[in-house]
Amino acid sequence: MSTSDLSRREKHYAFGGWQEVWQHTSHTLNCMMNFSVYLPPQAATGPVPVLYWLSGLTCNEQNLITKAGFQRYAAELGVMVVAMDTSPRGSDVADDSAWDLGQGAGFYINATEQPWASHFRMYEYVVDELPNIIAAHFPTNGRQAIAGHSMGGHGALMIALKNPGRFSSVSAFAPIVAPSRVAWGQKAFNAYLGHDTRHWQQWDSLCLVEQGQPLPPALIDQGLDDPFYPEQLTTELLETACQARGMIAHFRYHEHYDHSYYFISSFIEEHMRFHATALQL
Amino acid sequence: MSTSDLSRREKHYAFGGWQEVWQHTSHTLNCMMNFSVYLPPQAATGPVPVLYWLSGLTCNEQNLITKAGFQRYAAELGVMVVAMDTSPRGSDVADDSAWDLGQGAGFYINATEQPWASHFRMYEYVVDELPNIIAAHFPTNGRQAIAGHSMGGHGALMIALKNPGRFSSVSAFAPIVAPSRVAWGQKAFNAYLGHDTRHWQQWDSLCLVEQGQPLPPALIDQGLDDPFYPEQLTTELLETACQARGMIAHFRYHEHYDHSYYFISSFIEEHMRFHATALQL
Repeated sequence: MSTSDLSRREKHYAFGGWQEVWQHTSHTLNCMMNFSVYLPPQAATGPVPVLYWLSGLTCNEQNLITKAGFQRYAAELGVMVVAMDTSPRGSDVADDSAWDLGQGAGFYINATEQPWASHFRMYEYVVDELPNIIAAHFPTNGRQAIAGHSMGGHGALMIALKNPGRFSSVSAFAPIVAPSRVAWGQKAFNAYLGHDTRHWQQWDSLCLVEQGQPLPPALIDQGLDDPFYPEQLTTELLETACQARGMIAHFRYHEHYDHSYYFISSFIEEHMRFHATALQL
Repeated sequence: MSTSDLSRREKHYAFGGWQEVWQHTSHTLNCMMNFSVYLPPQAATGPVPVLYWLSGLTCNEQNLITKAGFQRYAAELGVMVVAMDTSPRGSDVADDSAWDLGQGAGFYINATEQPWASHFRMYEYVVDELPNIIAAHFPTNGRQAIAGHSMGGHGALMIALKNPGRFSSVSAFAPIVAPSRVAWGQKAFNAYLGHDTRHWQQWDSLCLVEQGQPLPPALIDQGLDDPFYPEQLTTELLETACQARGMIAHFRYHEHYDHSYYFISSFIEEHMRFHATALQL
């Protein structure tokens, strides 16, 4: 594992722990990448579990750490929180002028089509390379949970479904639950995976549930004044599929809340406590 | 009062209340201005007290509302929170290429020197125009507190000192307490007020305390890893002056914390509870 250039770019004390941002050369994505790590006070004296956070379209490793207010609960509960960028980055990396394709819109899949396939392997980065770096360089006890927002909510659900037994729990704010069936996902999957929709199913949470993949205990929050609901966010399709299979998945719909970090910050405490319980803290 | 063009630019539900951003033409500053208002749930059924927040150099009305995480406590305690921009703005407004002078660096004073005097009257805006707009258009009960960060901590202290009896309480994170004595303040005051330092004293919190102006109950937090402490932030000078006059001013120094919103978010709960008690909630 080539992490010899791993370097800390930011370090801020917050709620008695450390909010850090690190940079490294990703051999999976073939570019420089930033990720953030919140080290709770408990990490100073022993290993702690990790919650991975996957952000939404246009975001990077900064959105969660500056806007969600999770650090208070991570500090109380003793959870390390790792957030990564949403795509490979840089002038050598393919991009598109649209905000919902290319850089900032990696969709947490492995692209097979050019010009994307050379860099856009966010699934492998999130599932393999980044956890290996975290395990090698930060005090983790091996227990993991995963969460995300919008495109990252899709990523969290899809990665949990594709890796049974690995995550104690999964949660999502306003996730894209069926990318194959909505405009955002169809645009991205056509570009990254090609036009044969049979290749899309392995990257689609709803398809994975319908195929019988198991889901860890799940908490999913959706705002009812979200401008992307229900057109892009077909939450009820996943809820129905989970109910039909007896999955432990709690779907909540909240009046007045929109798609922003104001929504996330209002419920992040409940997500942190949900994961802490599942992580047996 | 010309507020006929007052218009709402953002509205987000957060912690059961509304985080809003408004825009209007300021007759004091002679330009368009944004301010933010958090309306706690209690404001839906009756008038509530107001906490004014003054941000630091380079900031605008967004920094507090996206990064501090105060909404949880404002919602619990029933406090409206109003945050304004840090200077007049726009292509017609004088500016400087430096980040610590001109737009984004109004210092909450009334400039007397050109080219600044035509627009840079943030003191009058914060003390007169904005509170009149809030009183006319939002459900307030007349009770007020004031707080700020860095340059805005200076503004909060100075405005509280110049307006005895108006604010129940004042608090500051990493305030510039003696602008006349440090590089940031000297640069700004030379530009905005001219070279005669006798005209600076009325805008300098330390001078005002030394002149005998009363201070409401005060809470001041300073991080000990703040890169601007103690050169620009001569906190102990104000502490000593307040102690000599028997003022109720609680100064706290925190190991490891820096100048960022990670510091503010870590202690904003205590500031909110401090103000709520003083506001007799």
